[in-house]
Amino acid sequence: MKQLEKPLSNLLERVKGKAVKRIVVAAAEDKAVLLSLREAMKTGIIEPILVGNRGKIEAILAEINFSVGNTRIIDESNSSVSAEKAVDLIKKGEAEILMKGFVGTGPLLKAVLDKEKGLKKNGTLSHFALFDIPSYPKLLGITDAAMNISPDFNEKTEILLNAIDIMHRLGLEIPKVAIVSPVEVVNPKIESTVHAAMLSMMQKRGQIRGCLIDGPLALDNAISKEAAEHKGIHGEVAGDADLLLAPDLDAGNMLYKSLIFFAGGITAAIITGASVPIVLTSRSDSEESKFMSIVLAAALD
Amino acid sequence: MKQLEKPLSNLLERVKGKAVKRIVVAAAEDKAVLLSLREAMKTGIIEPILVGNRGKIEAILAEINFSVGNTRIIDESNSSVSAEKAVDLIKKGEAEILMKGFVGTGPLLKAVLDKEKGLKKNGTLSHFALFDIPSYPKLLGITDAAMNISPDFNEKTEILLNAIDIMHRLGLEIPKVAIVSPVEVVNPKIESTVHAAMLSMMQKRGQIRGCLIDGPLALDNAISKEAAEHKGIHGEVAGDADLLLAPDLDAGNMLYKSLIFFAGGITAAIITGASVPIVLTSRSDSEESKFMSIVLAAALD
Repeated sequence: MKQLEKPLSNLLERVKGKAVKRIVVAAAEDKAVLLSLREAMKTGIIEPILVGNRGKIEAILAEINFSVGNTRIIDESNSSVSAEKAVDLIKKGEAEILMKGFVGTGPLLKAVLDKEKGLKKNGTLSHFALFDIPSYPKLLGITDAAMNISPDFNEKTEILLNAIDIMHRLGLEIPKVAIVSPVEVVNPKIESTVHAAMLSMMQKRGQIRGCLIDGPLALDNAISKEAAEHKGIHGEVAGDADLLLAPDLDAGNMLYKSLIFFAGGITAAIITGASVPIVLTSRSDSEESKFMSIVLAAALD
Repeated sequence: MKQLEKPLSNLLERVKGKAVKRIVVAAAEDKAVLLSLREAMKTGIIEPILVGNRGKIEAILAEINFSVGNTRIIDESNSSVSAEKAVDLIKKGEAEILMKGFVGTGPLLKAVLDKEKGLKKNGTLSHFALFDIPSYPKLLGITDAAMNISPDFNEKTEILLNAIDIMHRLGLEIPKVAIVSPVEVVNPKIESTVHAAMLSMMQKRGQIRGCLIDGPLALDNAISKEAAEHKGIHGEVAGDADLLLAPDLDAGNMLYKSLIFFAGGITAAIITGASVPIVLTSRSDSEESKFMSIVLAAALD
């Protein structure tokens, strides 16, 4: 595959050829989460396990008219313990996706990051978003817009590798990666341009494989061939990026929200870097975005 | 005035009631710059003084069929000296706007910042952009998207004051200012949220006047009432910002370029904080944006 084709709902087609994925929800007594699960179950791509307060879960299921058949419900009223139990089910191989319900991000990640009982691999957990933007011709990955505040160079490299791994698992063999900065020139006073130069050369030297990297690129050079050529920047990545690595959380989040609220973008997002994808939607995400995030997690090879 | 109404071309109506502004161009032998001056002169709002290589200037004027009448052309082939001469003309009261031609930003700012002969006031020079975005109901100011890399708190305050001053001079008496961060809560690990909290309280205590400030606000909380209310954020600023202060250059530039390249935004921009507005367009700006930047500089009271 040469690029991830729009629309985002193509992910759903991709999932349909696969085995049903089991998704375990920590503190499932959350109406928005159960609504998005209901939509996902309709498509037949997932099979949930609900951990949480059974009484509350059943009340919401009745309220939203969601008949879960013989879905397992594991009764646990303490939300932190619920997160631990959900993680434990993954650890035992009983589910392939973790989803956050009515539990704080802190307690959930604490369970995920636990050295003995958790799901962490060696690297850094990070946020990966896949966008369908009306004004861009293909799907565009963005990382990290919601998790790592001010990653140092090693963390940034791990964030990048996490995202490349996701693109590979979506079938894109050689993603074109733009390392975004405010300018396209290396300026020792602007750390993001320094990191970008390092990552570009690491790809050229074979230290990072399975992708093409160019940077520093300003956002316009990354996504517009015309803007890139205006600056005399050529090559395969400039103007045609599949994945953008943001300088830090301030910048990544600004881009993420600008795309949704100003540019009409729709996104699917997961936390990656653990042994399984984690669906961690926020209250302010649209219904479609919550649903598509489950689909994204299920679409990974 | 309660808000700056769209479209951006309203600025032109505003200028038409004013005295013609004199604009001095440093190293005017620049085709794109002369084209935008030609458009601005057609509207009768400006009167240029061209400093630069006379031969080259006249060749371009002939090429683009731009008849400048009895416009002053001051022959100076050295572009740095040309910048100094342009600054000197401002200093002598012979022009009210400075514009960058075929001279590097470095030499131009060196002339502006010169302690004796320059145009600097006490504070910080900063970039101010005024956007017309299809998906936002009024004009939106953004600072700083192109000048200060990683401003400390005092510099950030000066950048903010510069932008508020511009909004006042455009006739908006009490701009609603959102200090943007990745999240809407104060988190000591995220410096932009700390700065935002300080600026918000400084406005409440009367240390900053002539505006309403709220922050930290994530971008969505700043420009969407619905998103703000989702987070339980009320008040006059949230969801209805006139001006956004970005955390730093990485984030400000990301927003700026996202608005232009993904959201169909049109912008007018100037450098502010000197004794006169400086028009410093970049090669990659659209024709309309270059023209509107001249109009913005001329529209200030």
